[in-house]
Amino acid sequence: MTRINENFLKLQAGYLFPEIGRRKRAFEAANPDAKIISMGIGDVTQPLAPAVIEQMKRAVDEMGRAESFHGYDDSGVGYEFLRQAIRENDFASRGVDIELDEIFVSDGAKCDTGNIQEIFGLDNVIAVSDPVYPVYVDTNVMAGRTGEAAGQGRYAGIVYMPCTEENNFVPDLPKEKVDLIYLCFPNNPTGAVATKEQLAEWVDYAREHKAIILFDAAYEAYISEPDIPHSIYEIPGAKDVAIESRSFSKTAGFTGVRCAFTIVPKQLKAYTKDGSGVEVNPIWNRRHCTKFNGVSYITQVGAAAIYTEKGKKQVKETIDIYMSNAKLIRETLGKIGCTVYGGVNAPYIWLKTPNGMGSWEFFDLLLNKAHVVGTPGAGFGSAGEGYFRLTAFATPPNVKEALQRIADAI
Amino acid sequence: MTRINENFLKLQAGYLFPEIGRRKRAFEAANPDAKIISMGIGDVTQPLAPAVIEQMKRAVDEMGRAESFHGYDDSGVGYEFLRQAIRENDFASRGVDIELDEIFVSDGAKCDTGNIQEIFGLDNVIAVSDPVYPVYVDTNVMAGRTGEAAGQGRYAGIVYMPCTEENNFVPDLPKEKVDLIYLCFPNNPTGAVATKEQLAEWVDYAREHKAIILFDAAYEAYISEPDIPHSIYEIPGAKDVAIESRSFSKTAGFTGVRCAFTIVPKQLKAYTKDGSGVEVNPIWNRRHCTKFNGVSYITQVGAAAIYTEKGKKQVKETIDIYMSNAKLIRETLGKIGCTVYGGVNAPYIWLKTPNGMGSWEFFDLLLNKAHVVGTPGAGFGSAGEGYFRLTAFATPPNVKEALQRIADAI
Repeated sequence: MTRINENFLKLQAGYLFPEIGRRKRAFEAANPDAKIISMGIGDVTQPLAPAVIEQMKRAVDEMGRAESFHGYDDSGVGYEFLRQAIRENDFASRGVDIELDEIFVSDGAKCDTGNIQEIFGLDNVIAVSDPVYPVYVDTNVMAGRTGEAAGQGRYAGIVYMPCTEENNFVPDLPKEKVDLIYLCFPNNPTGAVATKEQLAEWVDYAREHKAIILFDAAYEAYISEPDIPHSIYEIPGAKDVAIESRSFSKTAGFTGVRCAFTIVPKQLKAYTKDGSGVEVNPIWNRRHCTKFNGVSYITQVGAAAIYTEKGKKQVKETIDIYMSNAKLIRETLGKIGCTVYGGVNAPYIWLKTPNGMGSWEFFDLLLNKAHVVGTPGAGFGSAGEGYFRLTAFATPPNVKEALQRIADAI
Repeated sequence: MTRINENFLKLQAGYLFPEIGRRKRAFEAANPDAKIISMGIGDVTQPLAPAVIEQMKRAVDEMGRAESFHGYDDSGVGYEFLRQAIRENDFASRGVDIELDEIFVSDGAKCDTGNIQEIFGLDNVIAVSDPVYPVYVDTNVMAGRTGEAAGQGRYAGIVYMPCTEENNFVPDLPKEKVDLIYLCFPNNPTGAVATKEQLAEWVDYAREHKAIILFDAAYEAYISEPDIPHSIYEIPGAKDVAIESRSFSKTAGFTGVRCAFTIVPKQLKAYTKDGSGVEVNPIWNRRHCTKFNGVSYITQVGAAAIYTEKGKKQVKETIDIYMSNAKLIRETLGKIGCTVYGGVNAPYIWLKTPNGMGSWEFFDLLLNKAHVVGTPGAGFGSAGEGYFRLTAFATPPNVKEALQRIADAI
């Protein structure tokens, strides 16, 4: 008799976005003429950069001719032309030395941050911020690294680190001993960033406790303030204790193209039961090359185009559009008396719901009165209650109209 | 202290192909002028079909314009245009009714057949054929569903089902009770196929024991004999007990593009500890949508083009090239006195090594004397010892030359 993995049965019904979709469809059915503006799910709207389009078409053409056809990416971890571009532009340019075989190209940061836990033991204690990107938690539930659901979206056995106005949405070091720490800066959903000093505290903690930091930097391209670190490896000693994931999804509009990468430093170690250190890089390599088979050649050629002079300029122009949206959202909502966070180094605005309204209640209010869809903070964790996430990814005219409607509604 | 997943430490050194690569590079270094012909790794060489190229370029162009840009594939399981084409062409046309939400589009059959075990309990007994595609085994080792390495590439706790000349390379039903059964037809590496009657025995076994068959049909497009089933769902009752994976890699040269799909029937159940049935389809959906984020829009458009009239014709022409190679390999090796299997309904020829030679010994002989790289049967399992896999994926002139050289060498 085939046994199901009963850990899946612990998962709480409905990932956040299906529930949002359900409420939106119900509203649409009742109000077929309403023009809904979505500022909910974090999906981009601007087209791919012309430099990317040009190179992808070149790559498609190559695939149509025997002499330039590409089959499997034999390395399994990404073409060298792309890893070289990543190494130089994302790291060397910031004084960080990353070797080519520390870079693993993949089809998404969601996949990487979801899969990375597989290479670690089931008895590790996981620490996540609250609010949190649900994938970190759900993939650990599936693997059996947690107990049962414990109410308010939480699971027994996970250490939740509240991110609040008091700590400026950067979690305090845990009092409990934890082993695997998920950090995301710039943060989804709060838009908060960590300073070098704050990250250094985490690196110190991890070094002291032989813990590992799983650092999600999918939004680093949105950092506008000069002193904010783009990579955790800008902190001395971080290569001993941190794995960093990046993505082209938000950087270059690749949500529908699928390309990302994860850095696993060669000096990073995890430990066996008897305390021996094991290099994590070859373990992840083995996992990556066994359960994954590389990213499309066409996609990798497109990703490499982002690092050309033309590509960089075009990608920056797109990010500037989103960040102008973010600025407008922040300022407009501030003017009408709302308390807003984020939106300076991230495409997310974390809004305090007016008058202590519940975050799903505020969702329904915006949907019904302003025909605007956002994301209730409670969907990201209990510390998100009383907050609401708006994304800056809509088109500028839609953002203007949405803000006008929100102002009228509240 | 972060604990490593110690199951990874059970994995035996070196996936098969890295070892082949190592010996090949050593030979090249010593013989820089030798022109090596690869008939080893199962990678294609013919370019993508013109119909695919045309549609992919259209899709790239769409991604360059805001009004036709595609972000996330919101379904998470594949665009309906592709799933509809799969449903009609791969299943309905053979009298099999597959519903759209039973189809999960992914980035590879390697990924699907590697990931599928995650949704099942760790206490299931796994059965695999011997020889076997190593991914089925290695992913179960990583998950902790096996004991330690037990010599000759085997692991304790797995039930190995020998595929030999005696059973025509179709495994006998196991005497032990097993829960999760990996079957691959047309088979990699032996090129064997199972008849409807043979598959029906497996379906009966699974129904009787509440086992689940994980059916890998990545090579179904190579079936040339009319009575051989292309899908396990051609067997009545199979939808209760079988998950089937398909791939565009070998069907349409997508090894470097990455697209595949898996069917999880809605009526298929696995069981909890207390014997309650749990529908597997929503569990896989949850896993798929949490740890994966969809396939590139461009890729899915390309895959759909395979199902157009033009696409089908072009793809068949390419398969015909490979199958002419297979025929030539079979016939030529037969003429020089070798015993050969496969190559009729599969792009793999399973060759008995001459004079009972060891399969790695034969590998070295072919490499050194004929400058031809193949795959030693022992690399796929102990029952593969004494056999050698040749693929039909080289170009026709290379196949001719390789055969001449092999004939001269042995």
